[in-house]
Amino acid sequence: MSQHPLAAKPFGRLLLTGAGGNLGRQLRGALANWAEIVRVSDITEPGEAAAHEETRRVDLSDRTAVMQLVEGVDAIVHLGGISIDAPFDDLLEANIRGTYNLYEAARKHGVKRIVYASSNHVTGFHPVTSVLDTDAAHRPDSLYGVTKCFGESLSRYYFDRFGMETVCLRIGSSFEEPKNARMLVTFLSYRDFIELVRCSLFTNRVGHAIVYGVSDNPASWWDNGKAGFLGYRPRDSSAPYAERFPATAPNAELGDAAQQYQGGPFVLGEPMHGAER
Amino acid sequence: MSQHPLAAKPFGRLLLTGAGGNLGRQLRGALANWAEIVRVSDITEPGEAAAHEETRRVDLSDRTAVMQLVEGVDAIVHLGGISIDAPFDDLLEANIRGTYNLYEAARKHGVKRIVYASSNHVTGFHPVTSVLDTDAAHRPDSLYGVTKCFGESLSRYYFDRFGMETVCLRIGSSFEEPKNARMLVTFLSYRDFIELVRCSLFTNRVGHAIVYGVSDNPASWWDNGKAGFLGYRPRDSSAPYAERFPATAPNAELGDAAQQYQGGPFVLGEPMHGAER
Amino acid sequence: MSQHPLAAKPFGRLLLTGAGGNLGRQLRGALANWAEIVRVSDITEPGEAAAHEETRRVDLSDRTAVMQLVEGVDAIVHLGGISIDAPFDDLLEANIRGTYNLYEAARKHGVKRIVYASSNHVTGFHPVTSVLDTDAAHRPDSLYGVTKCFGESLSRYYFDRFGMETVCLRIGSSFEEPKNARMLVTFLSYRDFIELVRCSLFTNRVGHAIVYGVSDNPASWWDNGKAGFLGYRPRDSSAPYAERFPATAPNAELGDAAQQYQGGPFVLGEPMHGAER
Amino acid sequence: MSQHPLAAKPFGRLLLTGAGGNLGRQLRGALANWAEIVRVSDITEPGEAAAHEETRRVDLSDRTAVMQLVEGVDAIVHLGGISIDAPFDDLLEANIRGTYNLYEAARKHGVKRIVYASSNHVTGFHPVTSVLDTDAAHRPDSLYGVTKCFGESLSRYYFDRFGMETVCLRIGSSFEEPKNARMLVTFLSYRDFIELVRCSLFTNRVGHAIVYGVSDNPASWWDNGKAGFLGYRPRDSSAPYAERFPATAPNAELGDAAQQYQGGPFVLGEPMHGAER
Amino acid sequence: MSQHPLAAKPFGRLLLTGAGGNLGRQLRGALANWAEIVRVSDITEPGEAAAHEETRRVDLSDRTAVMQLVEGVDAIVHLGGISIDAPFDDLLEANIRGTYNLYEAARKHGVKRIVYASSNHVTGFHPVTSVLDTDAAHRPDSLYGVTKCFGESLSRYYFDRFGMETVCLRIGSSFEEPKNARMLVTFLSYRDFIELVRCSLFTNRVGHAIVYGVSDNPASWWDNGKAGFLGYRPRDSSAPYAERFPATAPNAELGDAAQQYQGGPFVLGEPMHGAER
Amino acid sequence: MSQHPLAAKPFGRLLLTGAGGNLGRQLRGALANWAEIVRVSDITEPGEAAAHEETRRVDLSDRTAVMQLVEGVDAIVHLGGISIDAPFDDLLEANIRGTYNLYEAARKHGVKRIVYASSNHVTGFHPVTSVLDTDAAHRPDSLYGVTKCFGESLSRYYFDRFGMETVCLRIGSSFEEPKNARMLVTFLSYRDFIELVRCSLFTNRVGHAIVYGVSDNPASWWDNGKAGFLGYRPRDSSAPYAERFPATAPNAELGDAAQQYQGGPFVLGEPMHGAER
Repeated sequence: MSQHPLAAKPFGRLLLTGAGGNLGRQLRGALANWAEIVRVSDITEPGEAAAHEETRRVDLSDRTAVMQLVEGVDAIVHLGGISIDAPFDDLLEANIRGTYNLYEAARKHGVKRIVYASSNHVTGFHPVTSVLDTDAAHRPDSLYGVTKCFGESLSRYYFDRFGMETVCLRIGSSFEEPKNARMLVTFLSYRDFIELVRCSLFTNRVGHAIVYGVSDNPASWWDNGKAGFLGYRPRDSSAPYAERFPATAPNAELGDAAQQYQGGPFVLGEPMHGAER
Repeated sequence: MSQHPLAAKPFGRLLLTGAGGNLGRQLRGALANWAEIVRVSDITEPGEAAAHEETRRVDLSDRTAVMQLVEGVDAIVHLGGISIDAPFDDLLEANIRGTYNLYEAARKHGVKRIVYASSNHVTGFHPVTSVLDTDAAHRPDSLYGVTKCFGESLSRYYFDRFGMETVCLRIGSSFEEPKNARMLVTFLSYRDFIELVRCSLFTNRVGHAIVYGVSDNPASWWDNGKAGFLGYRPRDSSAPYAERFPATAPNAELGDAAQQYQGGPFVLGEPMHGAER
Repeated sequence: MSQHPLAAKPFGRLLLTGAGGNLGRQLRGALANWAEIVRVSDITEPGEAAAHEETRRVDLSDRTAVMQLVEGVDAIVHLGGISIDAPFDDLLEANIRGTYNLYEAARKHGVKRIVYASSNHVTGFHPVTSVLDTDAAHRPDSLYGVTKCFGESLSRYYFDRFGMETVCLRIGSSFEEPKNARMLVTFLSYRDFIELVRCSLFTNRVGHAIVYGVSDNPASWWDNGKAGFLGYRPRDSSAPYAERFPATAPNAELGDAAQQYQGGPFVLGEPMHGAER
Repeated sequence: MSQHPLAAKPFGRLLLTGAGGNLGRQLRGALANWAEIVRVSDITEPGEAAAHEETRRVDLSDRTAVMQLVEGVDAIVHLGGISIDAPFDDLLEANIRGTYNLYEAARKHGVKRIVYASSNHVTGFHPVTSVLDTDAAHRPDSLYGVTKCFGESLSRYYFDRFGMETVCLRIGSSFEEPKNARMLVTFLSYRDFIELVRCSLFTNRVGHAIVYGVSDNPASWWDNGKAGFLGYRPRDSSAPYAERFPATAPNAELGDAAQQYQGGPFVLGEPMHGAER
Repeated sequence: MSQHPLAAKPFGRLLLTGAGGNLGRQLRGALANWAEIVRVSDITEPGEAAAHEETRRVDLSDRTAVMQLVEGVDAIVHLGGISIDAPFDDLLEANIRGTYNLYEAARKHGVKRIVYASSNHVTGFHPVTSVLDTDAAHRPDSLYGVTKCFGESLSRYYFDRFGMETVCLRIGSSFEEPKNARMLVTFLSYRDFIELVRCSLFTNRVGHAIVYGVSDNPASWWDNGKAGFLGYRPRDSSAPYAERFPATAPNAELGDAAQQYQGGPFVLGEPMHGAER
Repeated sequence: MSQHPLAAKPFGRLLLTGAGGNLGRQLRGALANWAEIVRVSDITEPGEAAAHEETRRVDLSDRTAVMQLVEGVDAIVHLGGISIDAPFDDLLEANIRGTYNLYEAARKHGVKRIVYASSNHVTGFHPVTSVLDTDAAHRPDSLYGVTKCFGESLSRYYFDRFGMETVCLRIGSSFEEPKNARMLVTFLSYRDFIELVRCSLFTNRVGHAIVYGVSDNPASWWDNGKAGFLGYRPRDSSAPYAERFPATAPNAELGDAAQQYQGGPFVLGEPMHGAER
């Protein structure tokens, strides 16, 4: 979306949480095109602020800090929290308490739209021989996935009860390039990721929407047909990387769960408590 | 579909109703390629007849005139009637009595195929956050939409009872160019409209088919997958016009029905009786 | 529903249209238990008024008369109009214009609930070897059925647009007793019919509901599961009448449409115009 | 299920959490028939132990205590936690951390079956004019409902990952008698509740099952057809109590959310943090 | 269905194959009420003929013999063939070649209706935690089940191509009484079996119907809702036999396939060739 | 998939049955890229062996020969058998006994993956006005189609019971070019056919998959969305051939079954026994 240099930007102030993570760093620049002010936060120091930026170091489990963080923003891209499997107590603070804190702060400050980084791991225990649409049942593949289910349920509640809209992005594997054979299916290029966030922010009404974050890869486990109203059209594909992970004869044993389920290695993890309490 | 200049044309005589309207004017020329004789009618004077044309001025609510109009035709493209919201009594005459008159005349004259201009307003009270397939329930957004539901039901009856085939085109917004942000979703280019009529006329069997008349726009509320047997492949898109209607922050109030439902401003209309009787 | 003799009745004033018809006569007495005043209307003289009744002779196609008829009522049971196949012009006046007149009058007078006598003939072209739920597609078996589809579409519009609730009763065959083998499947006893109207009037919210009006017969073409919120539990069955229509070997030719489709003999009718105009 | 007095009971040791609550008190006696030893726990003092009982006072958010509580049990009926809307921090401890602690303890101790008291409030934002089956999407009506969604997601994970089976009981309103008009739809008699727990414990395989806990009431929002393998057949009904809550004319305003959604008054609640932290 | 002693019976001649088997013996008497002449056949000597009977000893794989067997019959109840798992070559002759022979003979002799003994083993590899309707996908649990799938496919073809109607009875476990815990779910009493055959023979049109043959047992894996047009209402239940197979704690290992799948022990069988050829 | 000349090929030994048929000849060359050794068999002499090939002449109904044929292979592409309508006895030997022999041999030799040439004729009695997904019900249009249904059922069993994976290719019309108007819909180019086999062999897990073998033609009766995990993306289309079969007015009589059903002329065939036995 090109923008005339002097035109007012569509948003006054956007908040990006998790700005220091892999995807946050990709998105941070793009947001400059869409908002006069971009407030970026992270649990670690989010780096130097650009001219149009406000930076905040915030632990999302700190309710008071989150309340301040959200003040004055028009919409939120919520990438914050833990994005890999982790001890339950850590996930509880970052992904459950943290997400609740963010939604409550958003409600109290009148924020109308949140783009929520959910994950394909909310459905990771579906077999690799199925294709899921956006109504597929939750089948989380890890405690991490369970906490992302929580975020989807919580945001559904805030929409039904308060009209706060959320787009849940069930992000596949968003990296510079696919790193293994599984990612030939789950790859989401950075460019497509940014486009998906753009669609999620700018579509006039989204209600409570669910969409898989995936590029136009040759093989697919996910069908975004029911989210067609978002207008997301991926432009990239994993196809150029296919030769790096040459196909082999299907001799793997059927009992290897990481090969059988969409979640891949996540399905092999075991719950960890975290620090004793 | 190129056509050898001396080849016999596929249809002997095609009837086009509503030839004087916006879409009728677009289609009129194209029909010359498909039929030896094109009979064009309108409630107003349909203009000068080309060499291959027969012109008729007919009020569709006039049963006798419609019976004569249909005589000798092989198939009908029925664009006639009222295509905007209007007083009920007017809709009753044009869209209910008129459509009945046309189908009865077609039955009596042995016409086997009708392409019926239905409308996206038969489903206009579905929310903009849903994607409808061609089995979606009727949720008309206006009295106009209700009369188009009538046409779909009536044509279903004529197919089940008499084997007369109909393709119901649930036309989106067919204009030279999209005129507002909603039309970025509902746009149907003239070229795609003509192609859709072509598919509807030439597919060997159509039964009673329903298809959304829409180009290949980035965002979509409609899925034509179940009508794939028609072979309609849009070539145009609203994408080149997107910058005319720049996206804004989603600050519209949720209570604004014209933003919430696919029918757009139609959902705000109120029934009018028309002339007292 | 027993009612203490001195208790206020739930409705102040109920309107019953079509009071002179077969079902209207059955229902008229029952309404006395539910409303202080029952206004009964028919196109013919509706007979002497009981103490709690107001009688009106009204042609539903007369807009002014209908507007007066509806004034002051809390809810409507709309059995009026033509309930068999008939010339189109008659159906147009009674079932299309008449139903529109009633809904517009109801809207203007603030009526919040209408129980609408639809018909199984809106789906009569489904085969007898299928079981329909309340989302089944319209497949009318006659012009009469088409006009009942119109009523269902119109009432859907009035609900979506104005919040006026309707329960569409797709009535089977409601008589004292089943009269032929088909009615062993479609039978609706008078007692169950009255119960179904009671549920339709008293369920707290009904939205725009569709329910098949049928008793608990051994064989069934219709499944009311999705209308379970109405609480309709039939108490009668066609089983006691089964011996009157002894089963025969299935030697009927497959080509006999009246045996193949749920609508029975209706599917054999042909459109009639009615008086020329 | 009668049981010969000298026969060995099917379970060696059953654990009942939340034994001091309304439903826990009902179930406590019944469990004596099914297990040699019944271990009962509650956050308050669970009262005197019967001969076959072991009593424990345990706060479910105390991981170490829960680990001890679960040791040696064959199956668990998990009614513990908070069963009404409450401040988020309280729900977090009791329903999120507490449920996690219980499942982890069960996994470590090899427990194979848990009957989990979920709630109809996981789907409470579905309208009262819909009938849900057991695949209906989560639409929680409160923070309480969100925490029950968490329990359903968590237990799905433990089944997919570790083969631990859970039956999620989406309990309606289980009291001595219905207390208001809504409960005529949601009523679950104590006898039917106990039978449902029995089916959940004794069906040979349950996988991860979802079932609505509701008696055979006249009106229904829930369809247990897909859980038919559990063999639950309710014997009670709210019908005998219908006259206590006489039907009224449907004059309630459509905007009253507590009348519009299945969750009733829950949908009107607002999130509370609980004690500041 | 009582029958006046002097009334003509509905069928002139019915053919029962497999008359010597368990279910054939049950049905043989009942057929006397429905047909003037009952032709009974079996691969073994079918015993003495009653006054109204014709007996034939026929191997269904003998095409010429089958052609003679079918001559002059109005309808067929086809219980013949092998009804347990068996060597493939035997199944091929009896269930594949035999069923083809029967259908071809029926087509050539103008038979319009066949009641075909299919089996729950066509879907036996669906898990015991699912409830199947009559559209469930074939998942045969044995070579026997595969040959029953063949019969269902073949009969579908004969209906679509020639209009010959078939009711496929997916029979559960039809014995005097349930013999084990699995049969508490799959039990079909002899009385209900006979009633199901009666419905299958006498329903006016059946098309190509599929119905599960099962009594009204407490727990159920099968839902006959879509076959409601047959009017089959079971009167018996396995409930009286429940105490013979007392429930136990669900301690069976999840890996025991016979406990996991509806087909029970059938799923453990291994293909056998039969006699070498 | 380009392959470094010195790299080990993914498969050690692939077996291709039906190598002498139309599609077998196309595929034979391609297999050289995927396997060190390609064993090719046919009922006729399969021609001279290339350096990497082993050739076998085998009648698939010969169990012993098939057992030897399968020894030592890693995966099988099973194009063998009869691929047109034929006398039943021939189909029985080639497609039923032959397919069983192949699967049993594969099981005994530990083969893990079979690509099975099924056919669009397993669903050929679906009307041309419907679009089928890969879950569409079997509606075979010929005895040939019935035997392909058998192969799909049999392979489902071998997957559910033994974990042997199969991809069933429901091949449309695979020729050099479309030969008639129907093939504009059903055309599968040789290049796309080979690509589909490649996807079927190399996708890591396929379970028991069904996919329509069709190019990206303008009109479509089949939707491969649910098989998206295979990564099959057709590159060819029938569009360039459309002008050879010019569209005509839809004047064909509705009663012509070959025009009404997807199977085309197959639906007009009649069963033949084959040689008497």
